Amino acid sequence: MVVPARSRMVILKEGAKGQVELDPLTQKVYLTIEPPRLGFNQADTDRLRDALRQAGAGTVAVPLALMGRMADVCREKDWAVTATVGQGEAGPRLVALEPGDTRDRHFGLAVDVGTTTVVAYLVDMNTGETTGTAAGYNGQAPLGEDILTRIYLAATAEGLTRMQEAVVDTLNGLIERLVNRCGISPDEIGAVVVGANSTMVHLLLGLNPKLICREPYTPVVNNPGFLKAGEIGLKINPRAVLYCLPGVGSYVGGDVIAGVLVSGMHRAKEISFLVDIGTNGEMVLGSEDWLVACAGAAGPALEGGVARSGMRAGPGAVEWVRIDPGTRKVSYRTIGDEKPRGICGSGLIDCLAEFLLTGIIDRAGCFRDGRTSFTIVPAAESAAGEDIVVSQLDINNFMRTKGAVNAALETLMESVGVSPADLSRFYAAGAFGMYLDLESSITIGLYPDLPREKMIRLGNSSGEGARQVLLSNGKRLEVEEIARSITYFELNANQEFMNRFVSSKFLPHTNLDYFPTVKAKLAERGLLG
Amino acid sequence: MVVPARSRMVILKEGAKGQVELDPLTQKVYLTIEPPRLGFNQADTDRLRDALRQAGAGTVAVPLALMGRMADVCREKDWAVTATVGQGEAGPRLVALEPGDTRDRHFGLAVDVGTTTVVAYLVDMNTGETTGTAAGYNGQAPLGEDILTRIYLAATAEGLTRMQEAVVDTLNGLIERLVNRCGISPDEIGAVVVGANSTMVHLLLGLNPKLICREPYTPVVNNPGFLKAGEIGLKINPRAVLYCLPGVGSYVGGDVIAGVLVSGMHRAKEISFLVDIGTNGEMVLGSEDWLVACAGAAGPALEGGVARSGMRAGPGAVEWVRIDPGTRKVSYRTIGDEKPRGICGSGLIDCLAEFLLTGIIDRAGCFRDGRTSFTIVPAAESAAGEDIVVSQLDINNFMRTKGAVNAALETLMESVGVSPADLSRFYAAGAFGMYLDLESSITIGLYPDLPREKMIRLGNSSGEGARQVLLSNGKRLEVEEIARSITYFELNANQEFMNRFVSSKFLPHTNLDYFPTVKAKLAERGLLG
Repeated sequence: MVVPARSRMVILKEGAKGQVELDPLTQKVYLTIEPPRLGFNQADTDRLRDALRQAGAGTVAVPLALMGRMADVCREKDWAVTATVGQGEAGPRLVALEPGDTRDRHFGLAVDVGTTTVVAYLVDMNTGETTGTAAGYNGQAPLGEDILTRIYLAATAEGLTRMQEAVVDTLNGLIERLVNRCGISPDEIGAVVVGANSTMVHLLLGLNPKLICREPYTPVVNNPGFLKAGEIGLKINPRAVLYCLPGVGSYVGGDVIAGVLVSGMHRAKEISFLVDIGTNGEMVLGSEDWLVACAGAAGPALEGGVARSGMRAGPGAVEWVRIDPGTRKVSYRTIGDEKPRGICGSGLIDCLAEFLLTGIIDRAGCFRDGRTSFTIVPAAESAAGEDIVVSQLDINNFMRTKGAVNAALETLMESVGVSPADLSRFYAAGAFGMYLDLESSITIGLYPDLPREKMIRLGNSSGEGARQVLLSNGKRLEVEEIARSITYFELNANQEFMNRFVSSKFLPHTNLDYFPTVKAKLAERGLLG
Repeated sequence: MVVPARSRMVILKEGAKGQVELDPLTQKVYLTIEPPRLGFNQADTDRLRDALRQAGAGTVAVPLALMGRMADVCREKDWAVTATVGQGEAGPRLVALEPGDTRDRHFGLAVDVGTTTVVAYLVDMNTGETTGTAAGYNGQAPLGEDILTRIYLAATAEGLTRMQEAVVDTLNGLIERLVNRCGISPDEIGAVVVGANSTMVHLLLGLNPKLICREPYTPVVNNPGFLKAGEIGLKINPRAVLYCLPGVGSYVGGDVIAGVLVSGMHRAKEISFLVDIGTNGEMVLGSEDWLVACAGAAGPALEGGVARSGMRAGPGAVEWVRIDPGTRKVSYRTIGDEKPRGICGSGLIDCLAEFLLTGIIDRAGCFRDGRTSFTIVPAAESAAGEDIVVSQLDINNFMRTKGAVNAALETLMESVGVSPADLSRFYAAGAFGMYLDLESSITIGLYPDLPREKMIRLGNSSGEGARQVLLSNGKRLEVEEIARSITYFELNANQEFMNRFVSSKFLPHTNLDYFPTVKAKLAERGLLG
């Protein structure tokens, strides 16, 4: 599988908040245990439990599988052993037991399971460093490109199993590459933390997500707690701690909570606004005192395959576009510098912004000259020998997405009595947040028009949040607290939202004063007439 | 499989200490949960967790398998559900979730896994009553008759698996009979408590018992904690709590601890003595202030198949014997009143006592007339058409067993400064304790010579202890406290014990004054010359 060039490019997080204090989800405890003798012939397991208690690891539950190996492992290096202790259902439990001192080898896995792309980070739990990264397409995509199709396909027990196996296979493939590249055994991975949206978490755990998209939109679980890697078939230590970042609702999942964690907005005095645009525009508004969240059904306008010439962000996708205001000549760049095959989300946003700034479309999103499409790449230059275009229909679809995002933000702000002027920080989370051009996104009103130094891309905040939680029980408690404290507004049946959505018909916004820099540009170009 | 007639006979416990206060290892909690709606669309699992917390069940861990059924079960009867909550690794966990109110059906299983016989009790957790009992031979016996052979056979992974499967199959057969007879589904059994010796626990759990019989005699585990029935393949609810009564060493297992619990000796002011005679004579001495235990390698003298005409206590076994002092005519009775096929342990004890009281053998255990065997059943009356005899070799073997028991008790008493006169209660636990004739056992010195009202048979104390723990968390804490507080004397390499063992050559005892009633009988018959 080819990793999109872009995925490799953006591993570094622009918005990450520095180092995490190391207190990983597993700890390795080296023990030199007093060997049994006549008069001190306590059972092996009880002896180990006592030694762990004395070492300060608490009362550690020992699974049957490890009792079975206890006798041999303890005697292999004369009762010097290293115990890996992790979080269990309700207290610490033994994850692994190795002969001798193996504390210098201590690994965990942070995973971002996206609808399109899955990224796995092999993390050295001793240093906090990422030892290796691997990314690949989510194996579910060939079964169902968009998330609603997958939910539909997973409605039967068989379909659910196929969906689960597809993403687990993807993860196992990434794990295999990582352990081979980094020279470790899969069995040395003792903890996995997953950042993903609610539907992805359900499918990964084999839970039917059918109710997620039906009123009143209830997931099976928001916080699955501490599971075991073997329960879902991950090919690592089957007793490894498996933890999925908790969500707060069907449409505000662990990936969004990860964004909040990474941004630090839950610890700031000022009011911040975080948005993660995908199929749903998920957003969180708030500060250290309060957090509100909602998800507008943004629609898949930005996802590959929806726009007429749309494609996902793979090789050959037009990802950057500029249009000369005078000549209307188009400049573009593709991922991997390959022959153009289509336009991905970031390319589409650039097109729309350039259309607006060059007067090709008006503020209502209509082609001023009445045409039905605009050619970005002529047939002669394209890979398939066909024009790559943006159609009026594509623009109309996007207007709905933007309208949903705007309406959601405004409904949210009104519900807590906050005005646009109160926003002191803007965070762009999620996959689109990594790629979308900031100026273009502001120009068309997808992002607010704040001073640019207050606008921060979080990069792969889902993966970064998973990594921080993997490395820190403190961070884990923090995400749980974030999830608990967020007030979730369900917009799917909110009339106020619907009204705003319908009236939100202009680029960048009905009220141009909310976008001063865009207003200035349009005025400068004489496009405000 | 034919259940030995005797097993059916002795289900009622002579020594059981009345009723247990009901606080079973699982509790059933009926919940009417507020259904989800817009504005209150918390996830199903989190909603259930909250409802359980509000119902006082604590923070209950929900296993993945039950999350998978949550959505359907909760909606089947409009959010009225019954949750079965049991003990998990370190806190309560969800064992089952059923639609509607099913509190009137709440079942558990108490199991006595003996080397020879396995007995299963289906218990109504609401009333504490035993709804059904089923017994059968331990399926391991055809693979290896005695326990040392089984330990040997289990040394390889394959052999261990075979041993585990054999006893699990036995249990599953008993379970099938019980659930059919009592009209319940196997899935309704939510907890199992096992009373068994250490080796049986190891084999049941698939743990290699090889180190149990090698110095310094360390089991893999004394207290396995809370496991799940599915982990060992029991065909009941796979998430059912599986708890094995804790032991204190390789030779003082959960079956003996069960005996202590059932006797109540750990709560008595006076000093009691409990003995469980099998392959090993296991014994516990003590009071509410202290408890000491040891096991003498009694040897298999009393087990079926060792004595020349020996057999286990099945149909046709000579189980009761009297000899006329004048004519030396033998009267006997067999199990099931079938034609005699051999002599079981209780029959052998009767023979030896009668031999001593009729002067056939002397106090050193030798035939006074120099013969090498004594015929109990002549060939013409026996099932196989062969004489059923007790040989001098059989007697010599028995002398070693008795010597080991005597030596162990004396070593134990000396170690804590207690004399025979201090013993105020005697408890006979375990299978042999149910069947051996009290007077015969005293006559030959296997049991102490106390006033008879102070001598109590505990019946199947292993099964009864399991039943009490199944029904009461308080009793579970009590057995754990008993196991913790017992001081275990390892006699296998104790020189003092060896000296006593070797010098313990007389019936009933070297010092006849310890057995006043036997001394009187022998004197009366002129056998003290």
